[in-house]
Amino acid sequence: MHTWMRYPAFLLTLSVLSAPAPGAAQDRARIASPDGRNRVTVEIRDGALLYSVDRDGRAVFLPSRLGIAFQGAPPLRDSLRMVETARDSADETWTQPWGEVARVRDHHNELRVSVAEVGQPGRRFAVVFRVFNDGVGFRYEVPAQPALADFAITDELTEFTLADDARAWWIPSNRPRLDRSEMLFSSSPVSVTDSIQTPVTMETRDGSTFIVIHEASLVDYARMFLAGSRMQSTTLRAALAPMADGIKVRGHTPFVTPWRTIQLADRATDLAPSVLGLNLNPPPPNVLQSTDWIKPMKYVGIWWGMHINTMTWSSGPKHGATTANAKRYIDFAAANGLGGILVEGWNVGWDGDWIQNRNAFSFTQAYPDYDLREVAAYAKQKGVRLIVHNETSGGIQNYERQMDSAFALYHSLGVDAVKTGYVTDLTSEGHSHYSQFMVQHYARVIETAAKYHITLDVHEPMHDTGERRTYPNMMSREGARGQEYNAWSSEGGNPPEHETILFFTRMLDGPMDFTPGIFDILREHTGPRRQPWESRVRTTLAKQLALYVVLYSPLQMAADLPENYERQPAFQFIRDVAVDWDTTRVLAGRIGDYVIVARRERNGPTWYLGAITDEEGRTFDIPLSFLTGGRKYDAEIYADGPKANWLTNPLPVTISKRPVDATTRLHIVLAPGGGQAIRIRPAR
Amino acid sequence: MHTWMRYPAFLLTLSVLSAPAPGAAQDRARIASPDGRNRVTVEIRDGALLYSVDRDGRAVFLPSRLGIAFQGAPPLRDSLRMVETARDSADETWTQPWGEVARVRDHHNELRVSVAEVGQPGRRFAVVFRVFNDGVGFRYEVPAQPALADFAITDELTEFTLADDARAWWIPSNRPRLDRSEMLFSSSPVSVTDSIQTPVTMETRDGSTFIVIHEASLVDYARMFLAGSRMQSTTLRAALAPMADGIKVRGHTPFVTPWRTIQLADRATDLAPSVLGLNLNPPPPNVLQSTDWIKPMKYVGIWWGMHINTMTWSSGPKHGATTANAKRYIDFAAANGLGGILVEGWNVGWDGDWIQNRNAFSFTQAYPDYDLREVAAYAKQKGVRLIVHNETSGGIQNYERQMDSAFALYHSLGVDAVKTGYVTDLTSEGHSHYSQFMVQHYARVIETAAKYHITLDVHEPMHDTGERRTYPNMMSREGARGQEYNAWSSEGGNPPEHETILFFTRMLDGPMDFTPGIFDILREHTGPRRQPWESRVRTTLAKQLALYVVLYSPLQMAADLPENYERQPAFQFIRDVAVDWDTTRVLAGRIGDYVIVARRERNGPTWYLGAITDEEGRTFDIPLSFLTGGRKYDAEIYADGPKANWLTNPLPVTISKRPVDATTRLHIVLAPGGGQAIRIRPAR
Repeated sequence: MHTWMRYPAFLLTLSVLSAPAPGAAQDRARIASPDGRNRVTVEIRDGALLYSVDRDGRAVFLPSRLGIAFQGAPPLRDSLRMVETARDSADETWTQPWGEVARVRDHHNELRVSVAEVGQPGRRFAVVFRVFNDGVGFRYEVPAQPALADFAITDELTEFTLADDARAWWIPSNRPRLDRSEMLFSSSPVSVTDSIQTPVTMETRDGSTFIVIHEASLVDYARMFLAGSRMQSTTLRAALAPMADGIKVRGHTPFVTPWRTIQLADRATDLAPSVLGLNLNPPPPNVLQSTDWIKPMKYVGIWWGMHINTMTWSSGPKHGATTANAKRYIDFAAANGLGGILVEGWNVGWDGDWIQNRNAFSFTQAYPDYDLREVAAYAKQKGVRLIVHNETSGGIQNYERQMDSAFALYHSLGVDAVKTGYVTDLTSEGHSHYSQFMVQHYARVIETAAKYHITLDVHEPMHDTGERRTYPNMMSREGARGQEYNAWSSEGGNPPEHETILFFTRMLDGPMDFTPGIFDILREHTGPRRQPWESRVRTTLAKQLALYVVLYSPLQMAADLPENYERQPAFQFIRDVAVDWDTTRVLAGRIGDYVIVARRERNGPTWYLGAITDEEGRTFDIPLSFLTGGRKYDAEIYADGPKANWLTNPLPVTISKRPVDATTRLHIVLAPGGGQAIRIRPAR
Repeated sequence: MHTWMRYPAFLLTLSVLSAPAPGAAQDRARIASPDGRNRVTVEIRDGALLYSVDRDGRAVFLPSRLGIAFQGAPPLRDSLRMVETARDSADETWTQPWGEVARVRDHHNELRVSVAEVGQPGRRFAVVFRVFNDGVGFRYEVPAQPALADFAITDELTEFTLADDARAWWIPSNRPRLDRSEMLFSSSPVSVTDSIQTPVTMETRDGSTFIVIHEASLVDYARMFLAGSRMQSTTLRAALAPMADGIKVRGHTPFVTPWRTIQLADRATDLAPSVLGLNLNPPPPNVLQSTDWIKPMKYVGIWWGMHINTMTWSSGPKHGATTANAKRYIDFAAANGLGGILVEGWNVGWDGDWIQNRNAFSFTQAYPDYDLREVAAYAKQKGVRLIVHNETSGGIQNYERQMDSAFALYHSLGVDAVKTGYVTDLTSEGHSHYSQFMVQHYARVIETAAKYHITLDVHEPMHDTGERRTYPNMMSREGARGQEYNAWSSEGGNPPEHETILFFTRMLDGPMDFTPGIFDILREHTGPRRQPWESRVRTTLAKQLALYVVLYSPLQMAADLPENYERQPAFQFIRDVAVDWDTTRVLAGRIGDYVIVARRERNGPTWYLGAITDEEGRTFDIPLSFLTGGRKYDAEIYADGPKANWLTNPLPVTISKRPVDATTRLHIVLAPGGGQAIRIRPAR
């Protein structure tokens, strides 16, 4: 089924080794990154298999245990001996079909440590470490063997024992009934955490090292959370999302786990763009060697209207997804050079309680007032790509039954983009949203979509573990609190610092469909003094523009109603801004405070700069030394206007132009909750 | 026993009321603050007693339940009816013998709501609300009644349901075996917290309101923690520290609980100095009408040497508390105008495992190389006050057996200051460090000390609930991570932001003996590149000076070894700075980022200004409009020197003088991890 999960040849042969290989008597092995700064030590101590990580000779992870617990057997963790070590290395550069950067270098040294139980039944496994200049990945590989054929994993026993009680930025996990990623971030010493999601970003107490724990290549396993002690220990333990019966992973050997990744950087600004996880995913299979049909784009959508209650997903007088509305949005997209249009609420199933009635959704039958074929044809004629929406509400079987025929229908209509949704906490079978069951489902959707040349934008997704390397049709996803939380009156909105944390946490795992670009910030703000917790967009308008550069997505929405962009000079930036990048430079940033990013468009000389701040106004002098030396550029600057302030005066934007070059130091002033967006293109 | 726990007269008479009072049929009552901004609504809904708080018409606390659970009876929470309401108000101003401000205004409106069970046995209690311009206090009052005489409280059922999922700065509580206050702060949406300590400081999502929950007048009850839901609810519940058998509070009616306090402010800078809790403590009893013997002071101590392992508490070659050492420190204090000297490790009991051997401590018998009488006499002769150290290690009975005679001895020697210590998690009886048992103990120590005219500096204390109003000999305490954590190699030190959080959290409950003034910042920093988690002072030297102004304590230590102050021009600021204040102004501040405080000395015209920042360098223009108009001043400025940086270059301090007046805008530049300290005195 999973063509990307390819077993290394050694896995098929290791099990025939019956005696320790020559030189296997050692109980410690070391491997360093190509630049020598990161070093992993793997050792057996008192029968336990431990790894540790140091950087520049300073410990980052103290000796931490490795192992797996299987149902019906002692844990594969104790009384181990090293059987064999093997080394390898690689240095190759590959090109992303789209991304934050065009070219990615995969330069690492590899150490494979094979271990076996000392006593009977002598079960064997290996742990493979790849050490890069930007971090470490490791995974378990379990060869086929008589004592371990079909298996059920009850716990992965991997530990991450931080040397420092580092400060972590995190969102919680394993909340009963609320196992979601759409939460505000917390920050605390790692010793205080109890159960958190990855990627988790940490800063050592002296600010010298930034550490991100996550995973890569999650294709047939359970999602990993991390369990802390709440008791002043700095050990985090892998905690896998369960299926309904409590089992974490079912399978048979040979098998490999996802990679556990530890990204390391000297500065927060060195964390992004993060490519460690991409390098640990396999390249695309042959069927996807041609990716010309996969195109980044901006899009508009019949969507925000539902969130602000001027439209409905369900049928009725306010039904948003009508043929007429869709054509109006298509016209708007075409007139403004936006590539796509999303239509939500087009298919039957939304009437009544669609979260409970999971199996009511049809993915082919439209409401009577929406003619899918006509809209698809109209979009095609206008050169706009239709994004079809598939909300499953967690009705996995219902979706999988229809998926192939639905995707075939869309393909026949020339539709090549689908936005999926999974509003649910547990599947109807009682599995965690993040269990192996769901991992398998998401993988099936990606593969089926690839078959029909359909690209995906997944909401309520599995967290991103680099799938886009293998399947670049897996383009964007949600998986964090996005703009929609600024619309819902019961949810309080996102605080001004939110996006400055997202950049250094969630965005390290991959693109996010945040849906920036709300201009009507004062929408609900015209009545009497509002309650402080009520929702509103908690940014200036200029910051909404800057988010197009800061929060990377190959599918970037202009989220507001088309009428709210009328007569708005600032909308020109949304028309102009690129969505695919050759180069990304993080020029300044502190987690939760501010970030300034410059990106150069793919296949072009134009740079875009986005700067955002939290609730504090800030000023910067930014050298534009990333520009090509000697070349003249014009900067089109969209800045917070006089006295702009996210709370009291969010709308003023000052648009100006000035010549710049690589020697310019740009003075950037950000209002409280503000931002700045700049296009820098070669002078005509 | 507890002379300060005086029962309001009504408590002694209410129980004779057998019928509802006239006008008692109402089920809702309201009371507002004198300025009308804060309003409390108390109501009965479906038999539950609820209170809510709004400010400027916007909800701050939604209806939240009130009640108490007793052992062997149904909870006193359900099926209640309002029996009577009564109102009162007060506006009086009182003077602190020492403090952050001299004069405190107690201006409030009071609402007493008496309720009774509808059915049998018809138990009664009242909740009294006092509503101030700076917040709300409420407590339970339970009159004597046949159905509720002797009682055991199993839970206090008070809820605090925040209207907004505000951002909270907190430290955890109820960690098994680690129920301590000496932790680094976390910050998260309040919905994510599970069990936290008070005071907890919160900021609403829109930044419009700051909220601090704490308690006042904790004299014969258990300490209150707050339990959050971890599940996206914004309700915090009172969680009392238990005694060994799980019971929270034992007593008999009539009784009153401590006040639960909710401080409210528009800006973080309006939170301090916090006087809400002081106003809810009773004034001193007659025995303390004369407080002339209670004097704020700076002090040095035989103390830091033990933390950096150049001295020991225990006997032996490195024993710190020798007569000779003490005299040397006394000479140093006298020569530099510092009022006191602390000597730790002077008494027998430190040899061996003093944490386990709790009952080995004598509080009167000195080690042979330390002559208590001689040191006390020498100190008196030099005009320096000896602070005697009493570490109990949680051996409460051992201490209480000796306390009266020990304090009598100290008094006879002219010693009027004791520093106590309670390094323990559970008492030897198995009670929580924060249980009613310990609350009673701390109260006994304060009362006994008052009897002998002894002032107290309590380490590992109960948290401060305003006891100093009643017993001003209760001067300072620890109760948070202080400077000592910068010495211990296993603890990682305090990050640069630490004190900028302390100011807005822990310091709101009262003075802290933080022990600033470490000049030898590079002490252990001379070897090879250190591990990032190893301890060091994570500030610049100028920031150490600024802490004398920022972190208020009437007992303010010059914590470093005397030899480290030699030939240090910056030491002049420590010599000069006042320790008792007439006026305090918080000029700028953001929690966890920076704070700038100006204080005017008690009985004098000189101002001191302290500015500190986190790891980010910052600049400010601060108007000195707090100075007396038309008067000329000289500012002596201790600023971070060129390229100062807490990590790489902490020592440079630039000392300069300039004339200033009330029209001056002072340009303040703080280095990363830096600070600035200024004395502003009338021009000669």
